[in-house]
Amino acid sequence: MIKTPYLLFLGDAPDPLAAKVAQGIRDWRPDNAVGQFRMEGCKADMKLPDMTLAEAKAAGAQTLVIGVANRGGVISAAWKKVLIEALEEGFDLASGLHNLLRDEPDLKAVAEATGQVLHDVRIPSVKYPIANGEKRKGKRCLAVGTDCSVGKMYTAMAMDRDMKKRGLKSSFRATGQTGILITGEGVPLDAVIADFMAGSIEWLTPDNDDDHWDMIEGQGSLFHVSYSGVTMALVHGGQPDALILCHEPTRDHMRGLPGYKLPTLEALRDTALQLARVANPACEVVGISVNTQHLGEDEAVAYLKEVEDRMGLPTVDPYRHGSDRLVDALVALG
Amino acid sequence: MIKTPYLLFLGDAPDPLAAKVAQGIRDWRPDNAVGQFRMEGCKADMKLPDMTLAEAKAAGAQTLVIGVANRGGVISAAWKKVLIEALEEGFDLASGLHNLLRDEPDLKAVAEATGQVLHDVRIPSVKYPIANGEKRKGKRCLAVGTDCSVGKMYTAMAMDRDMKKRGLKSSFRATGQTGILITGEGVPLDAVIADFMAGSIEWLTPDNDDDHWDMIEGQGSLFHVSYSGVTMALVHGGQPDALILCHEPTRDHMRGLPGYKLPTLEALRDTALQLARVANPACEVVGISVNTQHLGEDEAVAYLKEVEDRMGLPTVDPYRHGSDRLVDALVALG
Repeated sequence: MIKTPYLLFLGDAPDPLAAKVAQGIRDWRPDNAVGQFRMEGCKADMKLPDMTLAEAKAAGAQTLVIGVANRGGVISAAWKKVLIEALEEGFDLASGLHNLLRDEPDLKAVAEATGQVLHDVRIPSVKYPIANGEKRKGKRCLAVGTDCSVGKMYTAMAMDRDMKKRGLKSSFRATGQTGILITGEGVPLDAVIADFMAGSIEWLTPDNDDDHWDMIEGQGSLFHVSYSGVTMALVHGGQPDALILCHEPTRDHMRGLPGYKLPTLEALRDTALQLARVANPACEVVGISVNTQHLGEDEAVAYLKEVEDRMGLPTVDPYRHGSDRLVDALVALG
Repeated sequence: MIKTPYLLFLGDAPDPLAAKVAQGIRDWRPDNAVGQFRMEGCKADMKLPDMTLAEAKAAGAQTLVIGVANRGGVISAAWKKVLIEALEEGFDLASGLHNLLRDEPDLKAVAEATGQVLHDVRIPSVKYPIANGEKRKGKRCLAVGTDCSVGKMYTAMAMDRDMKKRGLKSSFRATGQTGILITGEGVPLDAVIADFMAGSIEWLTPDNDDDHWDMIEGQGSLFHVSYSGVTMALVHGGQPDALILCHEPTRDHMRGLPGYKLPTLEALRDTALQLARVANPACEVVGISVNTQHLGEDEAVAYLKEVEDRMGLPTVDPYRHGSDRLVDALVALG
């Protein structure tokens, strides 16, 4: 578990997109961020107070979170200087970068000397069990996609937020590095050893109150041949009561697989439901979340209506129109 | 590689299925096993001479192979005592357990002191790629099961043997510790990092002659919630042209999952084929392999006929009656 609140390190971000992790924290857990740390030439801005390390420390920040992607897979000397100062000032460091903080000898040495923690959230920090398939108390909802990167995390985050607004019991359960950095905990599923994948998801979504919902972040797609095994572990380890189908309607082919077409929403519904019912016979598909970012407003509304009429399920873009109708569908499930 | 012949360590196996590794070696490389070592309470029996370490050493055994699984993964104190004695008696140790021999400080120290070798065959020795889904030359056959431990490896081994007898081009492709211990190479799939599972199977079954068959060892089951993600990676990474359905007809429930019934062969056929066709639209289910070890001969023959009539597919127990009819079905596919 990563200590909050954070100071968001934006470094020398060449553009706002590079700071996707920081933006996610800003959007979904604004209370977790007391301020931002920007270096010369930084082109990203989270509209948070710019702070020195000392100012952030005084404001209560406990962890410096690397909220920006690095160029060329190298932690630059300019970044290093800040990271080492942060450790010396009493901050933990948290990172979702491919190259690990713990693999940098200088960072490791200073962390040991100062007693601060280096969190590399791509690497599992827990010895997960093998899944036992036992029915757990409480409710679980999983977002499954026709493809990778179609808005599964966004959908689960939006529903979690809207459920909390209504006073419903909900927990977002992160399964990827961005979600883990945003919420401070979770399972980096794509880095888990094969045999323990489903068990890690059982561990992530334990027994809970009967009226509590785990909103589980999806990964990959049952139809994406590179990552479908990861998705399968979520479907069986998560034993969802409810599935949300996620889709991006303008893709020519599966992400990174030029020879593969996207499945229809009908195929996703039928395949995901059939597999999910192995672990939870009561599972239902309750709604559809469409990422319409590449459509105009009229086009998006028409597309959503067409899908809703065809599939007979509430169909929304939670970014444009909120996730309330998906939450309604969960509540209706009981 | 691992020095032969072996003494097979059966430990305190709670049931015969737990000794799958030893059984595989016994069935496919009987000349490699001079005897078995059983502890108090052992419920497995390879019908090999029971030997002390000294007797096995005198009979020429060079390596103590751990032929039994330990679910969840702890090397007990009772096992340790035997393993340390074996090292002291001049045996190497070979293991496919999740928890590594090399990670046990006492075993490592004694191995170093005695000059004996610790073989952990489960550890991936290759940096596998992420799957790219590209169509490969040559043919591939994958055994898929209604449950774990229903005879998938046995089926692929038997077909590989019978194909070679006919002069057909075939390679058994090991994906688990037993197959790797038997053949000396393969991918320890259940120990591969999630993101690289499908890629490891692409790597294992590369481009080959148009008339060459990879006989891919199956793992888990699409219907076994603990391991289904591993199976999914085989179905998509292996991009099989042919599937063999494997079944054991006397199970009350899925292995290790008391609350879960086995799927029907029809459900397995439909689910596996639908998923396999995402990666290879030409994939066909060509036959059924039934493990009839718990049925009498008449009962077995009647059961096989009933399944064959019902499913319209050649149905055999390759252990009782050979795999020739399954090989015929592969050949008929072209």
